[in-house]
Amino acid sequence: MDPYPKPLRTLIKELRRLPGIGEKSATRLALYILADKRGLKDGLISALEDVRKVSLCPQCFNLTDQATCAICADTGRDDATICVVEEPSDILALESAHEYKGRYHVLHGLVSPINGIGPDDIKLKELVERLQAPIKEVLIALSPSVEGDVTAQYISKLVCEAGLNVSLSRLASGIPMGGEIKYMDQVTIASAIRYRRTIRENV
Amino acid sequence: MDPYPKPLRTLIKELRRLPGIGEKSATRLALYILADKRGLKDGLISALEDVRKVSLCPQCFNLTDQATCAICADTGRDDATICVVEEPSDILALESAHEYKGRYHVLHGLVSPINGIGPDDIKLKELVERLQAPIKEVLIALSPSVEGDVTAQYISKLVCEAGLNVSLSRLASGIPMGGEIKYMDQVTIASAIRYRRTIRENV
Repeated sequence: MDPYPKPLRTLIKELRRLPGIGEKSATRLALYILADKRGLKDGLISALEDVRKVSLCPQCFNLTDQATCAICADTGRDDATICVVEEPSDILALESAHEYKGRYHVLHGLVSPINGIGPDDIKLKELVERLQAPIKEVLIALSPSVEGDVTAQYISKLVCEAGLNVSLSRLASGIPMGGEIKYMDQVTIASAIRYRRTIRENV
Repeated sequence: MDPYPKPLRTLIKELRRLPGIGEKSATRLALYILADKRGLKDGLISALEDVRKVSLCPQCFNLTDQATCAICADTGRDDATICVVEEPSDILALESAHEYKGRYHVLHGLVSPINGIGPDDIKLKELVERLQAPIKEVLIALSPSVEGDVTAQYISKLVCEAGLNVSLSRLASGIPMGGEIKYMDQVTIASAIRYRRTIRENV
């Protein structure tokens, strides 16, 4: 005997489709939504409907509900630098650092032969097209992983083949701020040693 | 500079209203919903709309989308026993044990003077009304907590005052199955000792 009515069951089933939400969490959320008297149902419904208005910026492929995204529309940013990221959410993280003032390019994935994702499945062709304009630097802000490395090498190859006069850089990898060396993995430590910064030149 | 478009921000804000969902989880869920191509948005919207059809059973105050709930509508159950629970979700847990075959009564809260919840704020009056019918036993399935104990005592008082010929019982409290005695709290151990079962009578 299932003591829950069908509409509640259906809501639980739909909530379970969300990442990281299991049967117990979905039930708790559904019962909370059901009991809510402060417009949560209406708020969620209208937010879910409105989110359909979000599409990709035709220039950088960031998320936007306008003709171009907020960053592409900002005339105060440096047009000569493009930062290449995997996902739109990476832009949020980079922007929160207030360190970068150029443009972005979202690949929407990484080259991953093991997952059958080739260079044509992500926005690489579109990146090379953008590099026809006078761009000074491409900052590759992809995660330091096998896929990130493969994709970075691929971008480097494309830039070479196109004979473009553009410098490429990658985010530094090393010990994160507040990270304790004794708890770091070997690859991070190896990378931090390999790319060590000189703080005093032996003159 | 907020790189997320407004409709996405709104969806994140609405998802944050759910219990246990913080900024990071809400962002992850919203981006997942946005990227979904398998009808998740539609599924959630229609489930949220349908869940409005759920109301309380006029008899036992369980959740239902029919005139009475599935348990009240079941003619095969014992009318002479009523199990009193705090929330509809407690019924799910009790039903999953396949041990109880009577009716239910959902209080929708517990008497809690500290939170300003008095006997009139929960479905106690309705319980006493139901006890006018020939009921043999009321099984109080409230959590063993201060509020659960106060509410159980209140039910006992109401039954006494109404001069009803009905027996009252409460769920046993003690060590849960698979629980290790060395990790149990003092109150549970004290309760398990106080209510120990005799397994062999000294004859």
